Amino acid sequence: MELFEGVIKGDQRAIARAISIVESDSIEAAVLIKQLFLKSGHAIIVGITGAPGVGKSTLVDRLAAEWRRVDNRVGILAVDPTSPFSGGAILGDRVRMQAHTADDGVYVRSMATRGQLGGLAHATSDAVVILDAAGHDVVVIETVGVGQGEVDIAKTADVSIVVTVPGAGDDVQTLKAGIMEIGDIFVVNKTDYAGADRTAGEIKAMLGLQEFSESAWKPPVLMTQASTGEGVLDVLEAISQFDTQKTDKRDRRLTRARSRLLGILRDTFIERLEVGGKSGEALSNAVKEISEGLVDPYTAAEQIMGKLQ
Amino acid sequence: MELFEGVIKGDQRAIARAISIVESDSIEAAVLIKQLFLKSGHAIIVGITGAPGVGKSTLVDRLAAEWRRVDNRVGILAVDPTSPFSGGAILGDRVRMQAHTADDGVYVRSMATRGQLGGLAHATSDAVVILDAAGHDVVVIETVGVGQGEVDIAKTADVSIVVTVPGAGDDVQTLKAGIMEIGDIFVVNKTDYAGADRTAGEIKAMLGLQEFSESAWKPPVLMTQASTGEGVLDVLEAISQFDTQKTDKRDRRLTRARSRLLGILRDTFIERLEVGGKSGEALSNAVKEISEGLVDPYTAAEQIMGKLQ
Repeated sequence: MELFEGVIKGDQRAIARAISIVESDSIEAAVLIKQLFLKSGHAIIVGITGAPGVGKSTLVDRLAAEWRRVDNRVGILAVDPTSPFSGGAILGDRVRMQAHTADDGVYVRSMATRGQLGGLAHATSDAVVILDAAGHDVVVIETVGVGQGEVDIAKTADVSIVVTVPGAGDDVQTLKAGIMEIGDIFVVNKTDYAGADRTAGEIKAMLGLQEFSESAWKPPVLMTQASTGEGVLDVLEAISQFDTQKTDKRDRRLTRARSRLLGILRDTFIERLEVGGKSGEALSNAVKEISEGLVDPYTAAEQIMGKLQ
Repeated sequence: MELFEGVIKGDQRAIARAISIVESDSIEAAVLIKQLFLKSGHAIIVGITGAPGVGKSTLVDRLAAEWRRVDNRVGILAVDPTSPFSGGAILGDRVRMQAHTADDGVYVRSMATRGQLGGLAHATSDAVVILDAAGHDVVVIETVGVGQGEVDIAKTADVSIVVTVPGAGDDVQTLKAGIMEIGDIFVVNKTDYAGADRTAGEIKAMLGLQEFSESAWKPPVLMTQASTGEGVLDVLEAISQFDTQKTDKRDRRLTRARSRLLGILRDTFIERLEVGGKSGEALSNAVKEISEGLVDPYTAAEQIMGKLQ
C-alpha cells in the first residue's frame, strides 16, 4: 500500500522497487499492477528499436530533453536481453541518469531477466503501467531490434520508431524481418556518415512495396544527427502527428491489451496444471513419456486437455 | 499418408513439404507430427549458436563433411529470424546446398516465420522430429544467438555449441546474456585473427566463475579456423564425448519434451478460449475493457479463468 502511494506520487525509489517486483514476476507483481492499472492510461508509449550502435540512446536522450522543455515527465525503459550479464546494464543506467541527475522528471531503467524472453515482455509491459501510473507523460521503450521477441515488445507501443544508420552492413540487411512492418516512423541517424540519402531512399523504396489505404498513416523517413540534435524536432513532430491518428492508437491499445491478457491466461493455465495434484502428475508423466519416445507431444497434450473437462 | 511414407524413406521433396506444413502451423502439422514422432529419437541434435559473421555456417558445413565421411546423414536447420524478409534465407539455402549437391545425405533448410518467435520455436522443434524420423543421424539447429528467443531454441538441443571470434567488439560483450550458460562447448573461430588466445582465455575465466560439481561436464573452449578445417576434428570429438554423458542427455530431452508439451498446451488452451462461444465473447470484452482502462489484465484473467470452472 505504501509502495502504491509512493509510485502514484512519482517517488523514484518506490518506482524502482515496483519495477524490481514485476521483474521477479512474483504474486506481489499481480497485486501491485491491479492497483496501479486503473491509474494508468495517460502516458503516450513510444517504442524505439534498432541494432546496437545506431544511436538509439542518444536519440532518446535528445527527445527526453525536448519533452522536459515543455515540462513533460519522461520514463525510459531500456530493454536489451543481449547485454552482458555482468551488470553492464545497470552501469549504463547510472551513466545515463547522470545527464538528467538534477532532474527528477526523467526516469531511466534497464529491463533485464534471467528467465525466458516471454518473462521480459511481461515485465516490460507491467513496468510501462508503473511509469504511466507514476505520472510520466511519455514512456519510452527502447529495444535492440535484433530478435523477433524484442520486435514484439516494441510493437505494443502507441507509436514505433525504427532507427538505422547509413550503410550499416548491406543497408537493406540492417532492416530485419518484421522491423519494416512495425515502423510508424523511420529514422536514419548519423547523417554525417556517407550514404544517408541512399539508405533513406532504400527504406522509402521498401515502404513503397507495401500497400497503404488512402486514409492510413504513411511512415515518414526522417534524417537525424542525434549527437548534435539535428532533426530531433522532426521526430518529435512526427510522433505527435501519429499520436493524433486516433484509430491507430485505439487499435494499438487493443493489441497491447490482448497480448497482455493472453500472456497472463497462458501462464495461469500452466501454473494451475502444475500445482494441481492430479494434473501435475499427469504433466510430469507425459513429459517423461515424450522424452522416451513413447507418446508424441500433440497426443499427450490432447490427453491432458481431455482430463480437464 | 503418402507424405508420411516419403519422409520415412528420406525423400527430400517429402521432407521439404513436411517442414513447410509445420511452418504454416496448421492442423495438418499436428497430424503429421503424431505419425512421425514415434519414428524419431535416434538422431543426435546439435545446437550451434553465435552472432552473425562468426562463421557458423562454414563450421557446420565442415562438420557435415566429417559426418558424411563416416556415412552419417545430416539435416541442418538454419534458424535466423533476423534475415531480411526478401527471401534471402531461401537463396542462402540454395548456395549452401550446392556444396552438397551431389549428396542426398545432407539436407539444408532455413526456418522462417511471419508470425511470432514462439511459432518459430515450435516449427523448429517439429522440423527436428521430421529430419530425425527421416533417418538423419545428426540434426543441426543453427541459430543466430542475438535474442533470448533464439537462445531458447538452441538450448533444447542434445548438445549446444557457442561460436565466437577473436575480439569481436568488446570481447566479453560478444558473449551475450544467457549464452554463456547454454554452451556445452565453446568455439573461438577465425584463429587467424589477432587475439584468439585472449578471447579463449576470457571465456575460460568466465566459465571459471561458474560452479561445476565434481562429476559435471566442464565446457571445453576450442579453437578453429573453419575456412581451412583446422580444429574441426576437436569439435567433433567434444560433441561425441558430451553425447556419452547419459545423464545430461536425458535431462536435455526432458527439458525439450517439457517445453514442447507446455507450448502445445498453452496454444490449445487459448485456441479453445477463442473459439468457444461464451469464452470467446468474454475474451474480446475483456480485451476491450483493458484497453479502455476499465479493468486491469490480472483481474480480467482471473474472471475468465473463474468462469471456466
